[in-house]
Amino acid sequence: MRKTETKISQLGEFGLIDLIKKRVFSKDKRIIVNIGDDAAVIRTSSERFLIFTTDTLVERIHFDLNYFTPEEIGWKAMVANLSDIAAMGGLPKYAIVTVGLPKSIHVDDVFSIYKGASRIAKKYNCKIIGGDTTLAPKDLFISIALLGEVEKKFLVTRSGAKKGDLICVTGKLGEAQAGLEYLKKYGRQKLPLVRKHLQPQPLIKEARILVKNLKVNSMIDISDGLSSELFHLTEESRLGAVLYEQNIPISPKCLKVATLLNKTPLAWALSSGEEYELLFTVDRKDQGKIKKIKSKKNISVIGEMMAKREGVKLIQKSGKVKDLKKIGFMHF
Amino acid sequence: MRKTETKISQLGEFGLIDLIKKRVFSKDKRIIVNIGDDAAVIRTSSERFLIFTTDTLVERIHFDLNYFTPEEIGWKAMVANLSDIAAMGGLPKYAIVTVGLPKSIHVDDVFSIYKGASRIAKKYNCKIIGGDTTLAPKDLFISIALLGEVEKKFLVTRSGAKKGDLICVTGKLGEAQAGLEYLKKYGRQKLPLVRKHLQPQPLIKEARILVKNLKVNSMIDISDGLSSELFHLTEESRLGAVLYEQNIPISPKCLKVATLLNKTPLAWALSSGEEYELLFTVDRKDQGKIKKIKSKKNISVIGEMMAKREGVKLIQKSGKVKDLKKIGFMHF
Repeated sequence: MRKTETKISQLGEFGLIDLIKKRVFSKDKRIIVNIGDDAAVIRTSSERFLIFTTDTLVERIHFDLNYFTPEEIGWKAMVANLSDIAAMGGLPKYAIVTVGLPKSIHVDDVFSIYKGASRIAKKYNCKIIGGDTTLAPKDLFISIALLGEVEKKFLVTRSGAKKGDLICVTGKLGEAQAGLEYLKKYGRQKLPLVRKHLQPQPLIKEARILVKNLKVNSMIDISDGLSSELFHLTEESRLGAVLYEQNIPISPKCLKVATLLNKTPLAWALSSGEEYELLFTVDRKDQGKIKKIKSKKNISVIGEMMAKREGVKLIQKSGKVKDLKKIGFMHF
Repeated sequence: MRKTETKISQLGEFGLIDLIKKRVFSKDKRIIVNIGDDAAVIRTSSERFLIFTTDTLVERIHFDLNYFTPEEIGWKAMVANLSDIAAMGGLPKYAIVTVGLPKSIHVDDVFSIYKGASRIAKKYNCKIIGGDTTLAPKDLFISIALLGEVEKKFLVTRSGAKKGDLICVTGKLGEAQAGLEYLKKYGRQKLPLVRKHLQPQPLIKEARILVKNLKVNSMIDISDGLSSELFHLTEESRLGAVLYEQNIPISPKCLKVATLLNKTPLAWALSSGEEYELLFTVDRKDQGKIKKIKSKKNISVIGEMMAKREGVKLIQKSGKVKDLKKIGFMHF
């Protein structure tokens, strides 16, 4: 076969995943969802589904050992997986943790990686039941595979959004990005400012509250940035969307650091990866119910789902309408 | 916490895994086996168990792009996982394939990796239902997580060997090592000689024949070498063992290449990793049945399980008794 000259850096991660999905992934009647969503979903009984997901963190790509302790690396890799389960409305159960280790690493640091992963997993009743250790020539990596469960009635995917749905987001945005920028500039000296970047939390419990109390039609976790995740929802649901700038909840820490570093807080709120907040769409009849749930977890209604032909727009505070850009963490 | 000065290179892979197992892995009543075996086993119903495993291949540690095509890398990584399922007596079902990719890699090569994994998976009715692509700064890696199933009555672990069991092995040994040594010296010019190293086969079907027809008390796949795997069986089963040199089936290709390169074929047969043959122990009452099954798959009875205090011995052709050494592929 003659090779094309395309390198992955020209294609981008999502282009690549789309192509792999089309060419490689297979479905059968037991596969409810295959990846392209946050996780794969397998029918195990008429009432319950198995959720199967994986996430990998690589040194110099996803973390820098100058800022991260080994424990935080294990923690964060586990959170990325737990968050995938949250985004499907499910509960995590069992994890397998693989580490690729440079020869020079100390045994205590390996334990610290496992300890970090184990601490946050335990908090959500997820058990580490196995793993693999392998040598890596240069860069440390950690790859976790996780099994979860979800009741059929609570399963939420990326593709279920309906025209007219309210677009909602949990928490305050931009903090993970602000934390990273702060770390790069000042190091770990003011830990509270950077905690969301170093020790994020998966919203397992919050997601369960949402799926139990609202008609959540679609959901995704913000691992690559709000803007990028919204494009996933619109593409998978074959819809358009409009966001209201004035409703986007920007974290006070993000405002503070952005001001300090002379950056635009909104840009960070739209592009900040590894937030692990939830972006979801709700039947607009449930508008009243959203307000009630707000006491348990901060929820902002930031826009609505539109017909596909409307595209994906941002209505600025000035009232001006702009095309939203697909900004976010680009892996390639 | 004060750090010890121990580096992983001083501890070895198995020492590290043992420590992680003790400190990190948790069990509950649904966990039949956690890793330390080839895979973790989870009770899903009273009749059937879920098998959950993972295996990772890293460039410059497990493969060299000078000898391996991208397709062979995907193939081999999938075989490592399929072989874990075979060793438990189960059938593979669903896989998730993660690749860590250097920026310079061509898109076609990424597809070839997935194609290789997909081709061998499909042969055993295993579906790739998802994956993750991430950038890697330097070395390519592929990490696969696989789910399989096994009927309760057919599950075999490493720890079930009984004193007096016959130690058996499938196939002929030493070929993968011979292939690697040949590749290093001569490159890919004589493909048949090195096929077992480049395109190994998982013994899913053979393992099913064994567990359905024999009282198989313990089983492991030979991924790190016969000698090393036998130590796993004896340690997990708290027994000793004796091997008869004259019964160890050495591959004719191994003999040929070892003679060519002036090496000892027996040493290769004992240490050759990535053979993916099965090492298993059978109730000695089934000796007659083993002979019947031989027509379907070559099986050699190479020794027997002894009391723990007997240690692990090799009886040489001369009749001399030696302690068997734990040689094999050392990851650290």
